[in-house]
Amino acid sequence: MPNRLGHPLEKPLFDQLTLIGVGLIGSSLARVARRQNFAKTIVAIDSSEDARKKIAALHLADRVTGDYAEGVKNADCVILCVPVGACGSVAEKIASSLKAGAILSDVGSVKGAIVSQIEPHLPKQVHFVPAHPVAGTEQSGPEAGFATLFNNRWCILTPPEGTNKDAVAKLRLFWEGAGSNVEEMSPSHHDLVLAITSHLPHLIAYNIVGTAADLEAVTESEVIKFSAGGFRDFTRIAASDPTMWRDVFLNNKDAVLEMLGRFTEDLSALQRAIRWSDGEMLFDHFTRTRAIRRSIIEIGQDSATPDFGRQTKDDPVQ
Amino acid sequence: MPNRLGHPLEKPLFDQLTLIGVGLIGSSLARVARRQNFAKTIVAIDSSEDARKKIAALHLADRVTGDYAEGVKNADCVILCVPVGACGSVAEKIASSLKAGAILSDVGSVKGAIVSQIEPHLPKQVHFVPAHPVAGTEQSGPEAGFATLFNNRWCILTPPEGTNKDAVAKLRLFWEGAGSNVEEMSPSHHDLVLAITSHLPHLIAYNIVGTAADLEAVTESEVIKFSAGGFRDFTRIAASDPTMWRDVFLNNKDAVLEMLGRFTEDLSALQRAIRWSDGEMLFDHFTRTRAIRRSIIEIGQDSATPDFGRQTKDDPVQ
Repeated sequence: MPNRLGHPLEKPLFDQLTLIGVGLIGSSLARVARRQNFAKTIVAIDSSEDARKKIAALHLADRVTGDYAEGVKNADCVILCVPVGACGSVAEKIASSLKAGAILSDVGSVKGAIVSQIEPHLPKQVHFVPAHPVAGTEQSGPEAGFATLFNNRWCILTPPEGTNKDAVAKLRLFWEGAGSNVEEMSPSHHDLVLAITSHLPHLIAYNIVGTAADLEAVTESEVIKFSAGGFRDFTRIAASDPTMWRDVFLNNKDAVLEMLGRFTEDLSALQRAIRWSDGEMLFDHFTRTRAIRRSIIEIGQDSATPDFGRQTKDDPVQ
Repeated sequence: MPNRLGHPLEKPLFDQLTLIGVGLIGSSLARVARRQNFAKTIVAIDSSEDARKKIAALHLADRVTGDYAEGVKNADCVILCVPVGACGSVAEKIASSLKAGAILSDVGSVKGAIVSQIEPHLPKQVHFVPAHPVAGTEQSGPEAGFATLFNNRWCILTPPEGTNKDAVAKLRLFWEGAGSNVEEMSPSHHDLVLAITSHLPHLIAYNIVGTAADLEAVTESEVIKFSAGGFRDFTRIAASDPTMWRDVFLNNKDAVLEMLGRFTEDLSALQRAIRWSDGEMLFDHFTRTRAIRRSIIEIGQDSATPDFGRQTKDDPVQ
């Protein structure tokens, strides 16, 4: 039975849980693991001394180290929380120190490339269960994490054919305890789904913010001042971690290019409708898109409050 | 001295204020006018019987009518709060009933086309001061309005050369009392600024939601489930009023097509970088866009809370 959120486990899932990379996601997982009593010992590994100091100061782990081999050697579960592009080299670095029967997982936004980069390095006795929590904010670093980040969000597992069932079940308990709904699918299907629901949105947000910054006839200060007409929403996403997102696009190239091709085709059709004053086509298109918003709100993946609830919250006058 | 928000005027600005069209913006203005004591009498005109019933039930006006001539004839100030495409015909309908010295204004998201559609109909003794409050939510209708909608938002006035100074000053007091910062610029510059800060963002949001809905390999239910990775932000904007947005694109064609051309060019460059694995180009682009977000937060046009503050708010567990 899945552990209910808010009720810590009586018996920890693991003796030792090791998190590699303690940014937004890794530090949130450390907080979740502590809250839920997932492990007797939480070990955090980070290559940056600055990050290690922050983790220690925040008391997010029982032990903090920059020594990868030492940090993983007694772990029952190791979770890679580094950018997608770093997963292969980290897996190579830790592979020979992982203990037999250990679960290795990750939190990468791309799954196909991660599987092909990590699997070749792994000893047979290690159970690799790739995972992707579909959660996050535009902020980065150990201070940005929080224990409810995964609550009511989906976590997608993409275990390769033949993966040890107990390992998959344990990781499922882990994510359900974090408050997530867990779903399994193939790495390639994951990459297609995320290309449209996450990667393409980020790409076009980054793009429009760049376009706006490059204008000559409209100043940057005007763009900033009058951003409440819609633009500011895009700037939030375009403030996300550059390294993480560079790696996502380099590692999910095919699916992103496919979705981008469709997006551009559709945009050309809207452009043509504007040029030829085809109001009916525009109206029909704009009507159709309302239903999707309604469904997202209905299943609790966004708030029904207008303007994300920003207005009332930011507002000094009620 | 501008009236400070929250302190109603002792002496109303107008004997009669008439609002034509009482959707999100019009009904919010009615609420503001009441709160600030802007007029002795507030008259609401709407062509829809259903809307008139709602306005009456919400007590948003002292008088509600479907008779345009009668509703404007004693007004000192008339504000058109109808979609951009309807402004010309409404102006034609009311022109001969407007009293000498009356101020006529609007709230349209496009200014050039509105000026050229309204001006020809106006008698000389009417002072036309076009306005655009850069504020709104994705919701529509009289029930969606609220009195703090314009608080800490910008309102742009685009008075034609030679407009009566007192009329402009009075409308400025009106918007400052609504809590807005007021700025003046030419209609054509307004349309360029809004094309990038509002119109293009809406177009690409509408577009990506349509692209997602049309996929075969990814189901609509997957798009909805995994929308927290970024996509859901776009669905909010793409849930905006279809009539309003059709009219915006039909009436700000040149500026939107210009911005769209630049956006597409820039997107092609990012697409090429992805195809050729140019990580450096991607990283540089993604780094540059963070600064704009910071500035928007610094000047109070968005909240600094991660994820628009959604997470903590929606979250049952703190």
